[in-house]
Amino acid sequence: MTLTDSSKMEKNSSNMIHLTADSPSKPETVCIFGTGDFGRSLGQKMLQCGYSTVFGSRKSQTSSLIPKGIEVLSHAEAAKKSNIIIVAIQREHYNFLSELTEVLHGKVLVDVSNNLKINQYPESNAEYLAQLVPGAKVVKAFNTVSAWALQSGTLDASRQVKLSNMNDSKAKEMVMGIVRTLGLTPLDQGSLLAAKEIENYPLQLFPMWKFPIYLSLGLSAFLFFYCLIREVIYNYVYENKNVSFFIVISIPNRICPVVALILLALVYLPGVIAAIIQLHRGTKYSRFPDWLDKWMLCRKQLGLVALAYAFLHVLYTLVIPIRYYVRWKLNSYVISQVDQFIHSTGWHSDSYLALGILGFFLFILLGITSLPSVSNNVNWREFRFVQSKLGYLTLILCTAHTLGYGGKRFLSPSSYRWYLPEAYVLSLIVPCIVLIIKFVIIFPCLDRPLTRIRQGWERNPQEFKNSNDNDSNSAV
Amino acid sequence: MTLTDSSKMEKNSSNMIHLTADSPSKPETVCIFGTGDFGRSLGQKMLQCGYSTVFGSRKSQTSSLIPKGIEVLSHAEAAKKSNIIIVAIQREHYNFLSELTEVLHGKVLVDVSNNLKINQYPESNAEYLAQLVPGAKVVKAFNTVSAWALQSGTLDASRQVKLSNMNDSKAKEMVMGIVRTLGLTPLDQGSLLAAKEIENYPLQLFPMWKFPIYLSLGLSAFLFFYCLIREVIYNYVYENKNVSFFIVISIPNRICPVVALILLALVYLPGVIAAIIQLHRGTKYSRFPDWLDKWMLCRKQLGLVALAYAFLHVLYTLVIPIRYYVRWKLNSYVISQVDQFIHSTGWHSDSYLALGILGFFLFILLGITSLPSVSNNVNWREFRFVQSKLGYLTLILCTAHTLGYGGKRFLSPSSYRWYLPEAYVLSLIVPCIVLIIKFVIIFPCLDRPLTRIRQGWERNPQEFKNSNDNDSNSAV
Amino acid sequence: MTLTDSSKMEKNSSNMIHLTADSPSKPETVCIFGTGDFGRSLGQKMLQCGYSTVFGSRKSQTSSLIPKGIEVLSHAEAAKKSNIIIVAIQREHYNFLSELTEVLHGKVLVDVSNNLKINQYPESNAEYLAQLVPGAKVVKAFNTVSAWALQSGTLDASRQVKLSNMNDSKAKEMVMGIVRTLGLTPLDQGSLLAAKEIENYPLQLFPMWKFPIYLSLGLSAFLFFYCLIREVIYNYVYENKNVSFFIVISIPNRICPVVALILLALVYLPGVIAAIIQLHRGTKYSRFPDWLDKWMLCRKQLGLVALAYAFLHVLYTLVIPIRYYVRWKLNSYVISQVDQFIHSTGWHSDSYLALGILGFFLFILLGITSLPSVSNNVNWREFRFVQSKLGYLTLILCTAHTLGYGGKRFLSPSSYRWYLPEAYVLSLIVPCIVLIIKFVIIFPCLDRPLTRIRQGWERNPQEFKNSNDNDSNSAV
Repeated sequence: MTLTDSSKMEKNSSNMIHLTADSPSKPETVCIFGTGDFGRSLGQKMLQCGYSTVFGSRKSQTSSLIPKGIEVLSHAEAAKKSNIIIVAIQREHYNFLSELTEVLHGKVLVDVSNNLKINQYPESNAEYLAQLVPGAKVVKAFNTVSAWALQSGTLDASRQVKLSNMNDSKAKEMVMGIVRTLGLTPLDQGSLLAAKEIENYPLQLFPMWKFPIYLSLGLSAFLFFYCLIREVIYNYVYENKNVSFFIVISIPNRICPVVALILLALVYLPGVIAAIIQLHRGTKYSRFPDWLDKWMLCRKQLGLVALAYAFLHVLYTLVIPIRYYVRWKLNSYVISQVDQFIHSTGWHSDSYLALGILGFFLFILLGITSLPSVSNNVNWREFRFVQSKLGYLTLILCTAHTLGYGGKRFLSPSSYRWYLPEAYVLSLIVPCIVLIIKFVIIFPCLDRPLTRIRQGWERNPQEFKNSNDNDSNSAV
Repeated sequence: MTLTDSSKMEKNSSNMIHLTADSPSKPETVCIFGTGDFGRSLGQKMLQCGYSTVFGSRKSQTSSLIPKGIEVLSHAEAAKKSNIIIVAIQREHYNFLSELTEVLHGKVLVDVSNNLKINQYPESNAEYLAQLVPGAKVVKAFNTVSAWALQSGTLDASRQVKLSNMNDSKAKEMVMGIVRTLGLTPLDQGSLLAAKEIENYPLQLFPMWKFPIYLSLGLSAFLFFYCLIREVIYNYVYENKNVSFFIVISIPNRICPVVALILLALVYLPGVIAAIIQLHRGTKYSRFPDWLDKWMLCRKQLGLVALAYAFLHVLYTLVIPIRYYVRWKLNSYVISQVDQFIHSTGWHSDSYLALGILGFFLFILLGITSLPSVSNNVNWREFRFVQSKLGYLTLILCTAHTLGYGGKRFLSPSSYRWYLPEAYVLSLIVPCIVLIIKFVIIFPCLDRPLTRIRQGWERNPQEFKNSNDNDSNSAV
Repeated sequence: MTLTDSSKMEKNSSNMIHLTADSPSKPETVCIFGTGDFGRSLGQKMLQCGYSTVFGSRKSQTSSLIPKGIEVLSHAEAAKKSNIIIVAIQREHYNFLSELTEVLHGKVLVDVSNNLKINQYPESNAEYLAQLVPGAKVVKAFNTVSAWALQSGTLDASRQVKLSNMNDSKAKEMVMGIVRTLGLTPLDQGSLLAAKEIENYPLQLFPMWKFPIYLSLGLSAFLFFYCLIREVIYNYVYENKNVSFFIVISIPNRICPVVALILLALVYLPGVIAAIIQLHRGTKYSRFPDWLDKWMLCRKQLGLVALAYAFLHVLYTLVIPIRYYVRWKLNSYVISQVDQFIHSTGWHSDSYLALGILGFFLFILLGITSLPSVSNNVNWREFRFVQSKLGYLTLILCTAHTLGYGGKRFLSPSSYRWYLPEAYVLSLIVPCIVLIIKFVIIFPCLDRPLTRIRQGWERNPQEFKNSNDNDSNSAV
């Protein structure tokens, strides 16, 4: 192996520099339009990183806020000094730029603006800028970085600077160079059509998490009232016992495991639905319905919300012996009687606890492999092993834990109050459906055609297929 | 400081482009041989990212599966259109490529193929391709990415594309450019000799974890039968008590801490063995035995498996008061008698619990610093402080916790059943050995020569040593 | 979109290479001065990565330690063979380099040295080297990588190689190329003035963590003696009861929650102080006092130390029912009496447990979003939502948990021993101050001017402000 090409090119082009100019490399000048908060922060940062910087402003007076060492000129003068102009002005004030079309011709205009609302304007600010100044090369960048982050240097949230531009990769490369020099990470998002998405990005608030969180909150609310009726109100009406304090720990500790188990099953349900659709259609090349696509894309978030509920369930369960109610109940129970030790109850109590512990343990493992830095360090086979094999094992253990917890209780009429079964019975419906379908699918008579379909085979190919054009990555 | 050189080169080379062609930059054409699943997915992705793409296929008929906008030509025609040809064909069908040697001369051939088994063929697919088409520049790439990931855009597992090629860094750089444009991360693995490793990579399943996991499973199995004999069968034979339900929680809660402690000690054992070897040899430059090298490389995995067992031990311990058996036992005990409070027992019970809590806490800290994103943000001194100082402290605390748990019990003959000591006694052997050796090594009379050896000093240097060529990084 | 420019340049420059030399690319030669441990490790690694390497040494004899394939020449001869010379010599032996000034003229000198102490010399080693050899281009690099890491290939700690140089970006780019080829990540730190910081970096031991850890240890020590006096010594003096074993679990379980809550409140205190300062000054552009700046920069570390204490508190609490003392106390209590179940106590006991569980749960979430790989994947709005909104919710829940734990107890004189209130009372002071100020600040009459100030508005602007130069990133 040799030196990477970049360093060879390096020396090559450096020779050419030598031929044209023997002087040491002079600092590049960058122009910033707008002396607002973001413009000043960016200017100061550029100055620190060795760029010669100049501000373009309507009135070229310096203010005490302007970082020392940066000149303030008129827009036109400032623009002449540099090939890169960063437009740190709000979109509403862009229109004056159309007067500078001539000066800005051929230059790189960097649009850093953000809006206040998602999809505020029909076209993105960068596209609007490109229309205003037709001769310039517009690059969208820096809008994901905040003025405060530039000032303080604490870039805890994303250091990523997303870029997009109008099919001029040279202009993009120039801006990427600046981004790298400022210690940030450029991320090329493609053509200027992506600018709208880039402008919406900093306004988003966990878009992928919305559905899982709303679903879990909805389920929680439903189960809360379900349990309230079955346990608190029923007791109050029929036995005249006030157990209202159940809503603090006892009822949450019924809601959490039920929601966790249902969400975990919902992580695996779209996979089996997709398998059924593929088996039915005999091909993997027709698109899934839209809801299924969306569902499949938020499986990771569904699983992590389920893990959060499972974690709460564990905490709620472990404090049980500390609760005053439990201590009081045990005491009064102790005084009244000593039972014979029932061996089968010992087995039963320990078994469902152990299943829960193992299920939770695997669930934690799944959560850890979801961390970006961990999942970046495994290959596809390992990732699928963890998320699919270990995932199903977790589902099986958690379902068995719930079944074990219930035991034969669901058969006894006394466990039905106002004909409502206990909450855990509800939680078993979805996981059992998923596990039964999965169990059917892994039979060879269904598994074999499914595997072939997923490798690109089609039951009713309507077109000629090349025999040697098989998928060489089918094993992945 | 100035603009990074790349952007200067940029402008430089762009000037040259201007001299030769004033037209806007045209999209590059990439040719893909093979219209299988992976070929089509890659083609679609390339199209989306702005490449002009063309398929080479045996019969040039279009099928409905071919992404719109991509032409299907014969292999030879397609190859003529591009300098980069991606060979998305299975290795078994490569031989027809030797007929195209002339057309492919000087072009970059990208081998994306995977095998079904590790080391399936004597030479890697990429080397085989290079032999078939001698004039082409073969680059191995893209085999770590799956067709599904390209289609769906969900790159949860590795975005890394490993590359290797035959000493032609220009070809490699071209492919790296494509990799970056597709939003993936290129990772240069060196010459084409690395292709075999790259082809094996996606078929691997946690190779570094195999030894620690098999070891821990082996230990667990041994301890399970050990405890089964001591606690269940012994009770059944001599006291006719059926405590078979112990195998669900009580016995796992003996296995877990024992395995965790032994594995944790095994993390630090190779370090002290290495120190003894270095002290004995008087140099750090002779190679360690192979088994020691391998052992040292999987210490992180050993430690994390130990943490998993410790975590299970904590969960098993915390559910103790919820278990039916424990509640029943406490009740029957309560009824029968009220003891005097024994002060020393209070001290003893609390002490070993506290030691366990602190040990587990430090263990969790060690686990967190093992996360790739955390360990990338610390310097060597900090990493060594955590993994070595805090690591030994964890080992000391956990060993003390076990010693405290046992107390004086190991002295009483009643704790031996069939001459077998309790399981915790077994777990103390390795940690005590490690701690004693470490304690001896840190004495100045041994520590000083060891430090000097590790800085490059040799007791019996057979060759001239330059006095000013000291290791300038010895402090690290 | 087109091919990225780099690949275009690529082809362009490759054409030029073709014109000048049709031969295949030859491996680049790198020269290393010094055959010490680090020099040899680096040489071996370079050799493996395809560089032709040559050593410069005082005496050109080969030793068995020199990696095979690397020639050892005199310094001058070796320097002539390469444009890049890596100086792997300790600073004390640099002076001989001044004799080689002529040979080294125009070459890139890479300083890899480290010192033994922070700020050992008035100027950095790299600046000293630049003074000694005025014609050379000095680049500081590689000092953050250890010889052992290069030898073993296990780069668990930072793969980052920090670089800085004297305004010659071409030289820096050359070294960055080598860094990348060795599989490491270059990180440009700017001009050679940064060299001092780079040289101090590997000697640092968690500098940002020092204040939070010392503060928490100080608080812990104070609270330990406070609780010791109130609970152990008071009991011994007045009631002649020996409860010395309390110092193992009971007292730590009072210290941990108190320290955790105080530290958590200290995370949010600088924010409200800053808000008051900004409101008072009517501008965000005057600098905060130094102590406030430093405090704000270590908030993340404060929060994580608080989380560690909270985690210990949870563990200490969950083992309560397993403790011998607690079991004994419960037993003796059971025998003596059976209380009537007090409904309000049931509510109260469950409420504060539930508040604690939810607070801890949110705290864990905050901790997870502090992981570098997670915080890199959220945008600013999401990061601020989690760290600010969820953070305050955590503080509110934890404060309420503590208030609930105390209940009305603080009103009863019996809870004061030697006029000292219980420890939890102390812990409530700071959080209550923070929450009250925050509550006042979010009233519109204060929130509105504050928001405007933070967007760059000033109450008393002394200078002309451009109307269209508003901050376009104010929403971030």
